[in-house]
Amino acid sequence: MQNRKITIAELPKAQLTPEHFRLEDAEMPTPGDGEVLLRTILMSIDAANRSWMQGATYRDAVNAGDTMPTYAICEVIQSNSPRFVAGDVVETESVWADYVVRPARGLEKLPDARPLSHLMSVYGIAGKTAFHGLIKVGRPIAGETVVVSAAAGSVGGYVGQIAKALGCRVVGIAGGSAKCARVVDELGFDACVDYREPRLFKALRAACPDGIDIYFDNVGGQILETAVFQMNTRGRIVCCGAISQYDTDTITGPRNLPGLVVVKRLRMEGFIVMDFANQDATALRALRKWVEAGQIKIEEDIIEGLENAPNALIGLLAGENIGKRMVRVGPDPKG
Amino acid sequence: MQNRKITIAELPKAQLTPEHFRLEDAEMPTPGDGEVLLRTILMSIDAANRSWMQGATYRDAVNAGDTMPTYAICEVIQSNSPRFVAGDVVETESVWADYVVRPARGLEKLPDARPLSHLMSVYGIAGKTAFHGLIKVGRPIAGETVVVSAAAGSVGGYVGQIAKALGCRVVGIAGGSAKCARVVDELGFDACVDYREPRLFKALRAACPDGIDIYFDNVGGQILETAVFQMNTRGRIVCCGAISQYDTDTITGPRNLPGLVVVKRLRMEGFIVMDFANQDATALRALRKWVEAGQIKIEEDIIEGLENAPNALIGLLAGENIGKRMVRVGPDPKG
Repeated sequence: MQNRKITIAELPKAQLTPEHFRLEDAEMPTPGDGEVLLRTILMSIDAANRSWMQGATYRDAVNAGDTMPTYAICEVIQSNSPRFVAGDVVETESVWADYVVRPARGLEKLPDARPLSHLMSVYGIAGKTAFHGLIKVGRPIAGETVVVSAAAGSVGGYVGQIAKALGCRVVGIAGGSAKCARVVDELGFDACVDYREPRLFKALRAACPDGIDIYFDNVGGQILETAVFQMNTRGRIVCCGAISQYDTDTITGPRNLPGLVVVKRLRMEGFIVMDFANQDATALRALRKWVEAGQIKIEEDIIEGLENAPNALIGLLAGENIGKRMVRVGPDPKG
Repeated sequence: MQNRKITIAELPKAQLTPEHFRLEDAEMPTPGDGEVLLRTILMSIDAANRSWMQGATYRDAVNAGDTMPTYAICEVIQSNSPRFVAGDVVETESVWADYVVRPARGLEKLPDARPLSHLMSVYGIAGKTAFHGLIKVGRPIAGETVVVSAAAGSVGGYVGQIAKALGCRVVGIAGGSAKCARVVDELGFDACVDYREPRLFKALRAACPDGIDIYFDNVGGQILETAVFQMNTRGRIVCCGAISQYDTDTITGPRNLPGLVVVKRLRMEGFIVMDFANQDATALRALRKWVEAGQIKIEEDIIEGLENAPNALIGLLAGENIGKRMVRVGPDPKG
């Protein structure tokens, strides 16, 4: 058995490139008492990974020399804990590597659902982020207009489909006409606006004739500023991410804050998916119902091979993925 | 009887000056059916007055040629409505003038409390704004740290005193050492930071060793940006005003939004006092209790004479007032 890991060669100052990573051979780790040896199956690729390189967030900062952290689904290979046996499939905070050792305490066994990728997309981090952010923070009501940016991405696509299932008018914002067409035709959004076109303001206004009640923000920056101007009184801005601000050295704030927050009595609220972990069961039951009813389509974008993780993240930051991006490092033990 | 009014000669492009106003003789208005003739007693001077000159807000924009709008306390001089008799004292949306005619519908009779100025300060727009914003939007809990900007102003002073009464650690931000000393010595804040001194960030950090749980924002801009960096996880930013952004042509947004809103799961929420009108009775009962217990001191800053209203507003924007600023246009009918 051979182990490999991907470390940070150097922290990016502006845009992330392959040179910021280094693929290295690594020792096979040995689990101690109460620990398990895990084989990585799937690694989640998220814009947030890049934000961790900007400094401490809800987790420690990532530094040069560190193995790149990730959320992962793994198989238990060897267990020194009574809680797990070889062959169990677990989810864990992990790193970009073939094998890792983790304390059994805090590991969560996954349900026996297949394909495993669904436990990372609709029934995993992406679907739960969309559900909790939209339902608990945004609180949509049928008939309201919901706008979501990065609409062709994993969270954005689920946000829009959930909002549609709840009877809202749903408008996406995405990059490029191909993505926009897909968001409308495949995911059933009422409209999708291409932010790469000039006149985003006018296009968004035309797509939202009754204004915006909820803006689910995955991008921050200029697009947030545009949306704030079109929010209705008592509108809600769900702050999920700020992808436009992660892969750059020029951070800009929306000029219309906080002025319009007062005037329009907006609520702008940030969250991360773990905040609502105690309500995950409710989220999963609802997501399953909508998937079975055909109201949510599951789009996944799986890149093969640990060595391709850096390019998978770089490509995600450039907006090349459609649906939930992940890296498959090894096979599902059930095939 | 002679009537006068103050109109907008020209809208300010940057800083407001006396030349933007014109004092004019005006016809004495005559009330029609269902209307009342009112004599102005007190006019409220608020930073928001300036923001109305920037464009439409929660009310129509103020334009050149308009008589300057204001919130006012007036005496009924002549009534063509069964709801009012001469001598009644009412509150109303009004204009900068000695006399106005208003429809009786929508006028509110004021309780028989004296001095009338208290119905504009602690038991009026300032006290109610502080109460609703802090309690309903901020939701403080004893032991939390509450920071409030424009702490020597009317709303800010009440916010801090209410938060103290509720058991919070209270830190003000104000301009100049004299104001800061007064905020601590007279109003009982735990500390007050002078934003005109260099190193605001360090001074605020020293005054808030446990971070900031609630930031009650009256100013926006740079001070808001500084506060956001020091907010605790799940902190709340009560967006009440943005005085730093009103009297200028250069509007800047905090660079750390929305990034830190996500990371720290902040809630940033705007409100205006009318949003909570259905809870005014609760607010007034609580304010009265705190005043009687000596936990709230009433600071008022009354400028005499309609003709001095422009300078009263200009001075308020420059931060020269301590406590609730208002203009006395005419005497209380009860003396």
